[in-house]
Amino acid sequence: MKKYRIGIDLGGTNIAAGIVDENYKIIKKASVPTNIPRPPEAIVADMVALAQRLSESAGISFKDEVESIGVGSPGIILNGVVLQAGNLRFKNVPLADMISKASEKQVTLKNDGNAAAYGEFIAGCGKGKHSLVAITLGTGVGGGIIINGNIIDGCGGSGGEVGHVVVKAGGRKCVCGNRGCLEAYCSATALKKDTVKAMKKNPDSMLWQVAKNIDSVSGRTAFDAMRLGDTAAKKLVDSYIDYLATGVASLINLFQPEVVCIGGGIGNEKETLTVPLSERVSEFSCSFDGNITSVVTATLGNDAGIIGAV
Amino acid sequence: MKKYRIGIDLGGTNIAAGIVDENYKIIKKASVPTNIPRPPEAIVADMVALAQRLSESAGISFKDEVESIGVGSPGIILNGVVLQAGNLRFKNVPLADMISKASEKQVTLKNDGNAAAYGEFIAGCGKGKHSLVAITLGTGVGGGIIINGNIIDGCGGSGGEVGHVVVKAGGRKCVCGNRGCLEAYCSATALKKDTVKAMKKNPDSMLWQVAKNIDSVSGRTAFDAMRLGDTAAKKLVDSYIDYLATGVASLINLFQPEVVCIGGGIGNEKETLTVPLSERVSEFSCSFDGNITSVVTATLGNDAGIIGAV
Repeated sequence: MKKYRIGIDLGGTNIAAGIVDENYKIIKKASVPTNIPRPPEAIVADMVALAQRLSESAGISFKDEVESIGVGSPGIILNGVVLQAGNLRFKNVPLADMISKASEKQVTLKNDGNAAAYGEFIAGCGKGKHSLVAITLGTGVGGGIIINGNIIDGCGGSGGEVGHVVVKAGGRKCVCGNRGCLEAYCSATALKKDTVKAMKKNPDSMLWQVAKNIDSVSGRTAFDAMRLGDTAAKKLVDSYIDYLATGVASLINLFQPEVVCIGGGIGNEKETLTVPLSERVSEFSCSFDGNITSVVTATLGNDAGIIGAV
Repeated sequence: MKKYRIGIDLGGTNIAAGIVDENYKIIKKASVPTNIPRPPEAIVADMVALAQRLSESAGISFKDEVESIGVGSPGIILNGVVLQAGNLRFKNVPLADMISKASEKQVTLKNDGNAAAYGEFIAGCGKGKHSLVAITLGTGVGGGIIINGNIIDGCGGSGGEVGHVVVKAGGRKCVCGNRGCLEAYCSATALKKDTVKAMKKNPDSMLWQVAKNIDSVSGRTAFDAMRLGDTAAKKLVDSYIDYLATGVASLINLFQPEVVCIGGGIGNEKETLTVPLSERVSEFSCSFDGNITSVVTATLGNDAGIIGAV
């Protein structure tokens, strides 16, 4: 009898689940809204129900053919417990145990950024490599660090916070309370704010053409206007890439991984981002013979979290 | 018959060797000048002769009782080869093989910063812990990263460069070619330069009392003048600690080790440095319940390199 594993990516908006085979391919996936805030029990019940429905719809016996469940959750995770997860409003929730009891399956629980990094490591742009650092440029800057196949997540579960490498001492205030974090300069949120500022300063910029109005500015606006040849937009993107390269250089000087993998909304800019980023990084990092580390775009998108979780 | 190992710390100034027992205690040590620049063959001959003399003087048979030799060398090391070591002028030197042939012993070769970090991990302030980041505040800023007992040194041997975490994007030029590295702000060299600058700016400062003249400024000058109550010196030390705390916060947000261990010349300031540093770090790092990571002074001094090398 074939054995399958189910990966669940618990997000602030949706619970996404997928059945993963032994080659780390997703056979079938489904999702339901997370509807936060809700008590952990209600969310756990929905997660297990989703996993069961998903198995049935794929013609797989949940009881006999699903070996285990892997879960990626936001927050600080230690030994199967969510110590704290801001947007879920979880505090010291023994999530792995709760899901295990409700599903009668073995459950592993990891931080979602780490799970997604592991997914890219094992089945995406890090396939066949020994080490990978993933950076997800979204609402915040997340990611994960895999060295020799192991996730670096710290003695208390809050390591691997690549978004909170400080790139500028005493710089911009970050949501974490510190100043100058990579996240404060390179999240989509930060780029949007910088774009709005540039628009106000440059009323003739093509940024206005792309975004129409300030409310519809996105992380893509600056890149789109740059492609139209706009100078202010080019300046925005250059500065964004400079900060990102600074953070990536620090990560390479510390980990020298084989791959740095860029994902998230801004990661969708692909080579427009990774080509100049690689150039800046090789100027910035003090590695011996240049670019041993390759800086590439993540390949699995949202599936990385499901695949990595199993 | 008891078995011993010999650790050799190959430095730019001295070659230091020690006989280490199974409890990671140094039984006897000795050193000879490195006398650079010399061809690797001559340095290897001196290293092996030193190890043999050291064994004899301790009444230990080099042939029968010395099990293996561990060597810590500056530079980028990969698979027993020194790819590049600036001050030794080594390039692609198969140092482990050369020493092994000359001594007829099994030889392991590691970067000196990593070896010293491992020494502190196994026998110093990291004893009994699972993870440690060592920062050595000397002429440069070196160190090493040990996670779950493994040295993080990257896929090409140039990871673990804690001195080249960038603390200020676009900041001071660093010897590595990048800008804003921790080393450019927190080496003893940087502190000395900053001290001289402060002395020129403040002719009435007690910095002058401590150092007499500009040529005798050291990494201690600012700390000594601060202890006398000097304002300019206090400002210097505060700013130094701020940059160091920024770098340490980045390291904690990435690795969350159990211990951050501060060594080197400036590390000798002990609690004068580590107490305010810990305070700043706990403000700066985004770890969940504050100070899981303890920031302490290195305990083994120069012995760490010898002990870690074996």
